[in-house]
Amino acid sequence: MNRRSLLKGGLLAGIGLPFLDLKEVIANPVGKGKKAKNIIMMVSDGMSTGTLNMADLYANRAWGQGSKWLGLYRENKAVRALMDTASASSMVTDSAAASSSWGGGMRVPNGSLNVGAKGEKPQPILQKFKEQGKKVGCVTTVPITHATPAGFCVNIDDRDGQAIIAKMYLDLRFDVMIGGGSKYFGAKRKDGTIIPDYLAKGFQVAENKKEMLALDKSKPVLGLFAEDGLPYEVDRKHDQRLMDAVPSLAEMAMTAISLMKEHKEGFVLQVEGGKVDWAAHSNDVSGLIFDQLAFDEAVGKVIEFAEQDGETLVIITTDHGNANPGLFYADEADKKFDSLQNFKHSNTWLLAQLNQSLSEQKIKELIYEHQGIAMSSADVNSLMVHFKDIVPGALYNESNLPFYEYGRLMGKYTDVQWAGMNHTGDYVELTMFGPGSEKLKPFIKNYEIHNLMLEAAEMPQHFIHKI
Amino acid sequence: MNRRSLLKGGLLAGIGLPFLDLKEVIANPVGKGKKAKNIIMMVSDGMSTGTLNMADLYANRAWGQGSKWLGLYRENKAVRALMDTASASSMVTDSAAASSSWGGGMRVPNGSLNVGAKGEKPQPILQKFKEQGKKVGCVTTVPITHATPAGFCVNIDDRDGQAIIAKMYLDLRFDVMIGGGSKYFGAKRKDGTIIPDYLAKGFQVAENKKEMLALDKSKPVLGLFAEDGLPYEVDRKHDQRLMDAVPSLAEMAMTAISLMKEHKEGFVLQVEGGKVDWAAHSNDVSGLIFDQLAFDEAVGKVIEFAEQDGETLVIITTDHGNANPGLFYADEADKKFDSLQNFKHSNTWLLAQLNQSLSEQKIKELIYEHQGIAMSSADVNSLMVHFKDIVPGALYNESNLPFYEYGRLMGKYTDVQWAGMNHTGDYVELTMFGPGSEKLKPFIKNYEIHNLMLEAAEMPQHFIHKI
Repeated sequence: MNRRSLLKGGLLAGIGLPFLDLKEVIANPVGKGKKAKNIIMMVSDGMSTGTLNMADLYANRAWGQGSKWLGLYRENKAVRALMDTASASSMVTDSAAASSSWGGGMRVPNGSLNVGAKGEKPQPILQKFKEQGKKVGCVTTVPITHATPAGFCVNIDDRDGQAIIAKMYLDLRFDVMIGGGSKYFGAKRKDGTIIPDYLAKGFQVAENKKEMLALDKSKPVLGLFAEDGLPYEVDRKHDQRLMDAVPSLAEMAMTAISLMKEHKEGFVLQVEGGKVDWAAHSNDVSGLIFDQLAFDEAVGKVIEFAEQDGETLVIITTDHGNANPGLFYADEADKKFDSLQNFKHSNTWLLAQLNQSLSEQKIKELIYEHQGIAMSSADVNSLMVHFKDIVPGALYNESNLPFYEYGRLMGKYTDVQWAGMNHTGDYVELTMFGPGSEKLKPFIKNYEIHNLMLEAAEMPQHFIHKI
Repeated sequence: MNRRSLLKGGLLAGIGLPFLDLKEVIANPVGKGKKAKNIIMMVSDGMSTGTLNMADLYANRAWGQGSKWLGLYRENKAVRALMDTASASSMVTDSAAASSSWGGGMRVPNGSLNVGAKGEKPQPILQKFKEQGKKVGCVTTVPITHATPAGFCVNIDDRDGQAIIAKMYLDLRFDVMIGGGSKYFGAKRKDGTIIPDYLAKGFQVAENKKEMLALDKSKPVLGLFAEDGLPYEVDRKHDQRLMDAVPSLAEMAMTAISLMKEHKEGFVLQVEGGKVDWAAHSNDVSGLIFDQLAFDEAVGKVIEFAEQDGETLVIITTDHGNANPGLFYADEADKKFDSLQNFKHSNTWLLAQLNQSLSEQKIKELIYEHQGIAMSSADVNSLMVHFKDIVPGALYNESNLPFYEYGRLMGKYTDVQWAGMNHTGDYVELTMFGPGSEKLKPFIKNYEIHNLMLEAAEMPQHFIHKI
């Protein structure tokens, strides 16, 4: 027994001071020093600090209490660090290199999934945990083959190979893979659907919320709720058809947990709010805030589980900043920010309704009806100049919608402004809750998370990545 | 003796485990649990998270080691919190309301210095500490009558009353007041100079670095090293005349400390890097990064003192975000960011050299000589369009220099982009080091800092602000 365990379990208990008396000097007593049987890593993709803050400000203003995430700090329940997010090729990472740093324990060039600059292929962390008998899975609001989940699962030098990744998942036979991206699995594949292969290999396939809620924990699960990314939360919430068919991130996360939590060796789950990043790329303010709040709802549910469970380490973070939005100083800044409470749809949804054949009056009505903003004629006209050359849409902005211009116009009405439409090199917020969190120091490099997870779960030494 | 002091001082020592054995589970052992004899609060004014991060990235790239501030985290020496920065009138504060929240223990409307929405006038914290026999002072790179120092010193409902504040300081007779703003004290005052009044009241007045270094600790000090704000660090460093005449923030801070550190009742000092905020208001990238690094140099020196002293609480933070800059994802992002290493002057300095009578070639030469950027003809021409109506300059941008346009052009070359030119409502980084830092929780509201300082110094109960 070393001094530390002596101090915690033995000595203090022996003299009548149980471990909980240290609560005053130690931030997070939940399961501290215990082995983490389960690990849940939650990623709000592309979340600049301003995104985290504005979601908390919104929750405070609209609902009278802040976010679940920052609630962990307000209640002094969790440990926090600043995380350096660089990749092997740049101070500014992409999501593939970022997830690989956690998943493989080393930095790889942007665009690569667990393939290093010299061709190194570190074993992805969910493969390691699976080998040790744990159940493993990923949940996301973007394609399940997208960079962030894939970085925990596979080695491939090009993140764009999502159709290949879909086949890799078949062989890996992980326990729960839930999100979007059916086009990489179904009939839209160039080589035809591989769904029958999944079924033949014993998978259950869920294609809507009802099917998801009926899943059986004895068989591996593939859940695909959209061709590409799932709808933005603000769009889902205001469309009954989507509410019926598509689960929220919290519902997907809790389904994954309920499918794996009784496994005696424990489980490891990644939960990604992937469209926070997409909203930032589009400077889409309601897409951003409400998807961040949907992520936060999942945080609340996951922490509720972890608090009861006592053997679950929860890590909450992002892979990089994106667009560095902020609520700016202005006349009536608060009132402008509160106008977000009237949004029923994202900019992405709204812009897809517009075209140059609509009258100025009709466009004003659409914006007012769906976003609650009384836009000036001058602003409507300046927007519609950009409605030439629109192409029916695809990932990010291949459809050429005027996201930039609309984002700037919305900045006048909501007071939320943006520094760009891409990732930033900012260090980011990282939170740990539960057993293993005592190992977290106030500054950490992204790739160090890999070993931190393995060590928290007391995995065998040969799984530890040699740095 | 309560359980806690029993645990720390008594019980563990008694059974052979000295206090330092808790090092492993407690982040910052320096002076923990002791009374803070001295307090130094350091404020990088208007520092968005991206500013802190980019200064660290710069230090890593240019010098092979990160910033002193984040070094406290890397070495696990300090405690950190996220701080809510709202004022009484908005989620987005100004510097007056922000400093008042710390200085007076309550939120006041923007523009006010320790005068509440209902006319409340809480006693400013340096007055409290002075009453209890401590030496007190402020050091800043902007006028010493500016909002951030003034918020620790006075009650006045309009921060713009700097000439009035200069008179208030005379009556307060604080021990060390060092910075810029001689125009509020000298012959430029409408009612004539008040410097003779300061001398008559026993003050020493220093007007350059040499005079500052010759100050005597037996008499109160007024140091005024510029009419308004001090030069940006990048401009000072590349001008021998300024280097001789104007001290760095670190030199001013260490002078203040050396003048007060032998006082047996201790001292309380505010140190402000005030021009970080001005640079953000101007989207001036080298002004921003190098003033943040000058602030960081002061952090390093202050921590060195505090580590040796063992009785000094150091608080390091900002009052609000500003402009939310970031290093953006791009081809050659790293190389573009490294171009900052060639800057010899700020945008503010450079733009003041330009006028419409200069040839395109001459302008290119000036930019290349002083900022190392080979600007394209198209960019030079797009800039010069904005050179109508320039007025010789004053605070922020009364001179009408095209800061916005130049900031955007520089973004193409340095990859640093901006979300606006004003304050943001973001929560901000707050760091504590030394005795009292154990009281810090992971989330704090700005006004709670007031009582935290008083409690760390074990001030009498009647000084504690009733919230």
